[in-house]
Amino acid sequence: MNPDEVSKAFVEHYYSTFDSNRSALSNLYQEGSMLTFEGQKIQGSPNIVAKLTSLPFQQCKHHITTVDCQPSGPSGGMLVFVSGNLQISGEQHALKFSQMFHLIPTPQGSFYVLNDIFRLNYA
Amino acid sequence: MNPDEVSKAFVEHYYSTFDSNRSALSNLYQEGSMLTFEGQKIQGSPNIVAKLTSLPFQQCKHHITTVDCQPSGPSGGMLVFVSGNLQISGEQHALKFSQMFHLIPTPQGSFYVLNDIFRLNYA
Repeated sequence: MNPDEVSKAFVEHYYSTFDSNRSALSNLYQEGSMLTFEGQKIQGSPNIVAKLTSLPFQQCKHHITTVDCQPSGPSGGMLVFVSGNLQISGEQHALKFSQMFHLIPTPQGSFYVLNDIFRLNYA
Repeated sequence: MNPDEVSKAFVEHYYSTFDSNRSALSNLYQEGSMLTFEGQKIQGSPNIVAKLTSLPFQQCKHHITTVDCQPSGPSGGMLVFVSGNLQISGEQHALKFSQMFHLIPTPQGSFYVLNDIFRLNYA
């Protein structure tokens, strides 16, 4: 797979996991991972997953609008930039968001998230 | 300066240069730099600046809404995520945008842009 296909597959996996079994996202982060969520900085897989699972909604569905990808650095990392909509169950209007991931290859041939920055796009 | 201050200073410098003397942005990119502009991939400082200076508007003003920053990798790099508004001269409504930069330190104690991804946030 080329980088664009890899990043698209990662993004689909990430959001389908978020929407179906949020706590399983722990497999995609490591101890050195960082999340900045609406300006709040959180470090390490356990803290990141605690934040994501404690968001004030249970059922949600992400719809991806764009995925942009660039290689980053000599070690096979990738930067992935996503825009999309977040539909929260029971809410009339979807929320627009932008999110970026810095993905680092693992010895198992997969990727983990080193950097993750999430922002809602307020109107 | 801490990373948040450095990234904020970089962002202010970048957009004030963009709004006043776009061709001077060439100093902030290098040969290995990449720009993805609304999905179009462009490589190298000359090509990137050619793209930015050929956008179909001359006078514009960026207004920054949020700046998020994370360190990235062992070499002192930084990921910077920006949201803001782009007001084009003569247009009634500003355009919302999101942009990310991967900044790499230079031997001179400054930073250059290795990765740059720009997207308008369509309503």
